[in-house]
Amino acid sequence: MTEDSIIYIGSKPVMTYVMAVLTAFNQKGADGVVLKARGQAISTAVDVAEVCRNRFISGLSKPEIEIGTEELEGQDGGKRNVSTIAISMRKEEGEAKKPAKKKKDEE
Amino acid sequence: MTEDSIIYIGSKPVMTYVMAVLTAFNQKGADGVVLKARGQAISTAVDVAEVCRNRFISGLSKPEIEIGTEELEGQDGGKRNVSTIAISMRKEEGEAKKPAKKKKDEE
Repeated sequence: MTEDSIIYIGSKPVMTYVMAVLTAFNQKGADGVVLKARGQAISTAVDVAEVCRNRFISGLSKPEIEIGTEELEGQDGGKRNVSTIAISMRKEEGEAKKPAKKKKDEE
Repeated sequence: MTEDSIIYIGSKPVMTYVMAVLTAFNQKGADGVVLKARGQAISTAVDVAEVCRNRFISGLSKPEIEIGTEELEGQDGGKRNVSTIAISMRKEEGEAKKPAKKKKDEE
């Protein structure tokens, strides 16, 4: 079993991260991908997970989601709290065990 | 057991919704509160859940989180998809069974 890929979500367009998830599953052969985001990017992370599940990747199980808080140092040296999210997407059992398709030119 | 209160998160300040959660738990005696949000308000919903759990309400169990997609009609009549989140916060077993404190003037 391979390690889960971690993808950090920032302020780029949603489809940029969707492509990263597809790459992790298809080319790197990951069984799971974890999307991590904080602050305003949390909404983007949820968008990425939903677009992947509804439009691009079949056989994903229901995502497991955890939220938390991190302490950041502000520009004035003060501390401020920022919320975080981690969305864990996994291939369902049946799917994960299938061997990855080989490209024809690799055979 | 009372029904879970549902609180819809929009664009107001985080503390507005924190107050609503406190009211639901303390005055209405709810065992659980569900925060619902969509689009950019998803980040605010996570903030509300974290502020409640870390600063105001002890004895909350780990929140259960579900994400989804809704289809909205845009201003030009076209359809667009928007992500949604539902964060379910519950009092832990021990806490939930304690009778609510009565105010003195109600006795």
